[in-house]
Amino acid sequence: MDAEARAARAAETMWAADEASRWFGFELIAVGEGRAEVALDVAAHHCNGHGTCHGGVTFALADTAFAFACNSRNQATVAQHCMVSFTAPGRAGDRLMAVAREVSLQGKNGIYDVTVTNGETVVAQFRGLSRAIRGTLFEEEET
Amino acid sequence: MDAEARAARAAETMWAADEASRWFGFELIAVGEGRAEVALDVAAHHCNGHGTCHGGVTFALADTAFAFACNSRNQATVAQHCMVSFTAPGRAGDRLMAVAREVSLQGKNGIYDVTVTNGETVVAQFRGLSRAIRGTLFEEEET
Amino acid sequence: MDAEARAARAAETMWAADEASRWFGFELIAVGEGRAEVALDVAAHHCNGHGTCHGGVTFALADTAFAFACNSRNQATVAQHCMVSFTAPGRAGDRLMAVAREVSLQGKNGIYDVTVTNGETVVAQFRGLSRAIRGTLFEEEET
Amino acid sequence: MDAEARAARAAETMWAADEASRWFGFELIAVGEGRAEVALDVAAHHCNGHGTCHGGVTFALADTAFAFACNSRNQATVAQHCMVSFTAPGRAGDRLMAVAREVSLQGKNGIYDVTVTNGETVVAQFRGLSRAIRGTLFEEEET
Repeated sequence: MDAEARAARAAETMWAADEASRWFGFELIAVGEGRAEVALDVAAHHCNGHGTCHGGVTFALADTAFAFACNSRNQATVAQHCMVSFTAPGRAGDRLMAVAREVSLQGKNGIYDVTVTNGETVVAQFRGLSRAIRGTLFEEEET
Repeated sequence: MDAEARAARAAETMWAADEASRWFGFELIAVGEGRAEVALDVAAHHCNGHGTCHGGVTFALADTAFAFACNSRNQATVAQHCMVSFTAPGRAGDRLMAVAREVSLQGKNGIYDVTVTNGETVVAQFRGLSRAIRGTLFEEEET
Repeated sequence: MDAEARAARAAETMWAADEASRWFGFELIAVGEGRAEVALDVAAHHCNGHGTCHGGVTFALADTAFAFACNSRNQATVAQHCMVSFTAPGRAGDRLMAVAREVSLQGKNGIYDVTVTNGETVVAQFRGLSRAIRGTLFEEEET
Repeated sequence: MDAEARAARAAETMWAADEASRWFGFELIAVGEGRAEVALDVAAHHCNGHGTCHGGVTFALADTAFAFACNSRNQATVAQHCMVSFTAPGRAGDRLMAVAREVSLQGKNGIYDVTVTNGETVVAQFRGLSRAIRGTLFEEEET
């Protein structure tokens, strides 16, 4: 099984079970080994008391891209720590795009950077720190 | 106007406009100067592909407590940067409680720590870094 | 061996081998299970181009207190990730004190908060994320 | 004055006043608008009780590259918050290189990523969050 097929299959398996991402309204745009892109059309119910996209929604979007990226090798992996910087507000009607890429993977520890953009504007910079745990997302036949 | 009444009024104003927090299912339990408590009953639609509460939902809960705490002086304040460590999974049926407290407030810059618990178990440790901007949440009469 | 004696012995072992901490000019003030206090008298050579204590020196002071705290159970433990917020400048002549406390310890993963103060002023807030590795600091006899 | 000349002049001004960086043994290798490279030959006195380069020294190296990068526009700028992930140990005899690049600059707020390497090995990933303050590093004539 090649790396891109494995990433696609891992994403499919995760997505099928991921009620939260569907409830948030996320769309999985692309996935590959160590990378993922997830989109969200911001709606009124995603917005907070400042009239802007709730930081938790923006974080969740980035975190979801991170999760698909760090599980793309079919090795069950969890988020241990995350850091986010909010650089511009998102608003209802905006289409936000989160692009995750692998910065480092050493043994069980990974570092993934996610940039959330609204067109040309960067809305958030996110760094996720992952750790592999036991198990796989789907059974892979030995060949 | 005393500090606790101001905090209550600021929270009321924020809450009334905050569609996202209602959509998440958050409950504002308590608020005071520099502190806030927010609860969530985790439902199936909050859960991800690992069968546990989506990190974005846990983050959003902590972030909401942080927002109420850092706006409690009726000085409009935004989250600039946040860091979260996930220490145990939340699951559907759990009642999560986020308790935010002010660690530091120097000029426009604040540091707030939020602990998210499920009964005795700590689910997440969150640190929020805030910055005051122009404006207030509600008009306060000079006396 | 009781917890406090074990912490003292672990600290002694670390300190004996720690050339960097002596070179920095750190003083180990106190150590116990999950906690440590380290002091520094800031000198001219610790200061940067803004005339204030170099952020790397302040960080190193906090990181050292973190290291003593997270190794206090005689389980070899390393810093994986750290975050620091600088809240006030330190200057030559100041005596900085870093106090580390354990916020969370679950299996191999620990969270430690360190506050660096100059008298009443908080100079930095530091959060260290540790991971236990194989080995001990000193051999402990079974009894 | 062009951007690269301004960056060089700002770095020169900072370096002349920066006793700490010289004491650490840092070498300023290159500087430009929004970027900087700083090197360190790790010596025994930089090493801690695990026999590896003290995390505070590695942090200070990254922090110094960050400082030169974020001050390169001759706008006085300070580190507000920093996060570091240690991915491999440095040892006495290693030559560490910290390369800082600007990820984001919006108004007074900047985000800088610094990678610290030892040859092909990444030793640390650092993210620095800066804020511009009043003043410049050197007087620039209007033309």
